[in-house]
Amino acid sequence: MSSIIGYYSTPFGELWDKSLDDLFLEAATGIMNDLQIEMKQIDAIFFGNMLGGVVEKQLLLSAHLSELLDVNIPIYRTEAACASGGMAFHTAHEYLKSNPNKTVLVLGAEKMTDITASEITEALATAASHKEQSVGLTFPGVYALMAQVYLNKYGYNEEHLAAISVKNHAHGVLNDKAHFRRYVTIDNVLESPYVAYPLKVLDSSPISDGATALVMTNDSQMVQNRKSVTVLSSETATDTISIAKRKRLDEVESTKVAGNNAFLKAKINRTDIDVMEVHDCFSIAEILALEDLGFWKKGQGGRLAQEMVTHRDSGNNTIVNTSGGLKAAGHPVGSTGIKQIGEVYLQLTRQAQERQVKNASYGLAHNVGGSGGVAVVSILGI
Amino acid sequence: MSSIIGYYSTPFGELWDKSLDDLFLEAATGIMNDLQIEMKQIDAIFFGNMLGGVVEKQLLLSAHLSELLDVNIPIYRTEAACASGGMAFHTAHEYLKSNPNKTVLVLGAEKMTDITASEITEALATAASHKEQSVGLTFPGVYALMAQVYLNKYGYNEEHLAAISVKNHAHGVLNDKAHFRRYVTIDNVLESPYVAYPLKVLDSSPISDGATALVMTNDSQMVQNRKSVTVLSSETATDTISIAKRKRLDEVESTKVAGNNAFLKAKINRTDIDVMEVHDCFSIAEILALEDLGFWKKGQGGRLAQEMVTHRDSGNNTIVNTSGGLKAAGHPVGSTGIKQIGEVYLQLTRQAQERQVKNASYGLAHNVGGSGGVAVVSILGI
Repeated sequence: MSSIIGYYSTPFGELWDKSLDDLFLEAATGIMNDLQIEMKQIDAIFFGNMLGGVVEKQLLLSAHLSELLDVNIPIYRTEAACASGGMAFHTAHEYLKSNPNKTVLVLGAEKMTDITASEITEALATAASHKEQSVGLTFPGVYALMAQVYLNKYGYNEEHLAAISVKNHAHGVLNDKAHFRRYVTIDNVLESPYVAYPLKVLDSSPISDGATALVMTNDSQMVQNRKSVTVLSSETATDTISIAKRKRLDEVESTKVAGNNAFLKAKINRTDIDVMEVHDCFSIAEILALEDLGFWKKGQGGRLAQEMVTHRDSGNNTIVNTSGGLKAAGHPVGSTGIKQIGEVYLQLTRQAQERQVKNASYGLAHNVGGSGGVAVVSILGI
Repeated sequence: MSSIIGYYSTPFGELWDKSLDDLFLEAATGIMNDLQIEMKQIDAIFFGNMLGGVVEKQLLLSAHLSELLDVNIPIYRTEAACASGGMAFHTAHEYLKSNPNKTVLVLGAEKMTDITASEITEALATAASHKEQSVGLTFPGVYALMAQVYLNKYGYNEEHLAAISVKNHAHGVLNDKAHFRRYVTIDNVLESPYVAYPLKVLDSSPISDGATALVMTNDSQMVQNRKSVTVLSSETATDTISIAKRKRLDEVESTKVAGNNAFLKAKINRTDIDVMEVHDCFSIAEILALEDLGFWKKGQGGRLAQEMVTHRDSGNNTIVNTSGGLKAAGHPVGSTGIKQIGEVYLQLTRQAQERQVKNASYGLAHNVGGSGGVAVVSILGI
């Protein structure tokens, strides 16, 4: 059984004065300092990065890390587009299942703001199918199609979507690492410009820079006297890259499969989950996630989103995206999946400061690549 | 303990009529047909690809595979430049250590010939450091510097290097999947044009397309009645991305560390190895590999290469690069590490046809990313 014993995050945002290497190094040395451990105590590194090759002209980033951190240990790069961080965590968990007495570093970093908006849009679109790319269907467009199907099928409108952003911005205000720390209203969201109908700027997560780090271990001595959580399960599943090849556009099959497997392995119920970070790259995505993970019945998400039943002030038991989600905390893609795990870790170990949720014992993180081509669902407990 | 129960390779070469998807699909369906198993018997896929994002503008290739193969199972993409295939195999081996009764598909594919020579050179150079890239030090240059240090330090010359290519071309003639199937002489090599002094065209592996597939399992029923080998160990290690940051240029630290760990875990000796595929992207690399893996003493490699002591006709016990190596069999980078394992599998199971080595019981595969930033060493036995 593996445990998480620490989490570090750089601020998320437009970090003009930091390179990808700076971000990696800050996260890696930050967590080492926090935990008072040295690199020689680390047996392997798992790291998530999506765009190194495309944006930075840098592949083989594992050797970059070897150089930056002065180690010769195994280093694994995982790439699954926006689920690259979740896959790094998942792969680390798999590694610890079979290698006893090991301590590993899980890193995520992405540097997205050093190129133009059209260049980063094109770079992100490499996670869409060639046909989608060729007709100009970038990710706002893909998720907009999913949103249209959902709203039409279940009789909702843009106000229902807007509630997701209002809630996540309210949460993000309390997160000192968040890209955006301001409240937005339903009217703010509805009045923001369309990106791809029916999705608007304020339905959409931003382009962010940032790095995150976790230390995981199955060495009981490393866990002693440290604030730790147990990884109960981490599961991944896939689906077609093209949305045109899917049976339905109002659900994400990879999330359903990974979620069901994660709950089977964790041996707990949905009602046990106190805090949850889900992949809200666009407002519609959080609604689909809650339904596909089995928390809400299919088609009820619009109403429940509008009622903000997962808001920290709702008085309910399951609070979603206490970090602010991708929407407000930011979305440096390789870091996001690790930030989600980190936020759950902070909540379960009572280190979430102003945004602490009371009595949280179990948490879930849900990270998606592309329009649902890959999903990773992980369940943690104290 | 995991076993390999089958191997499939497309031809390697300039496959103008095949896309990356065609190659993936041919390798995956080819091995399924050979083994008479169906995709629903596969629990996870591990695949190596280096350049999908850079050359094909396609990341999230895991979802491409999900679509091509109509599955929702976990799919892991590994990227470690030219060691991407070796890392796919290594990660699959790690997975099987902790997940009982599983059968997995290991795939590698690379499509390199659809762009110009300068574009593919630039794409491959993403596995060099930014400083190396900025001064135009692409991989022939990096390995040429290593060759110069080696030749100067130990008193060898270009003829010693040439012997590696002569041997590997002689082996490649017997491999019906090889990119090149012709003999070359020492004079042919010495008379070929310089790419980067002292390395010439015929010291260098080619730019190839190709895909490879393995099926691995820890389900004893899947092994029954099939030709199988056991994976005794698979280890990886890293080193600085910049050659300027290394202590020495006449050895590759990552190969030494991974090799030593692989032999410790496999609990066999160097002298037990009958066949070996090593990473001969340039002739110098095979000499360094044999030394750094502990088969030859440092500095003796030039002489032993010239004596062709690892040639299949040498009468010696350890034959190197029976496939023709990267030099003659070709080097579709994401496939190479898997082809190496596949070649050892074919030799150990007596399926290597014309190029079969007698009485082979143990084999080793050695795959390198970049100039040595990552190495993977795996040991197989029957």
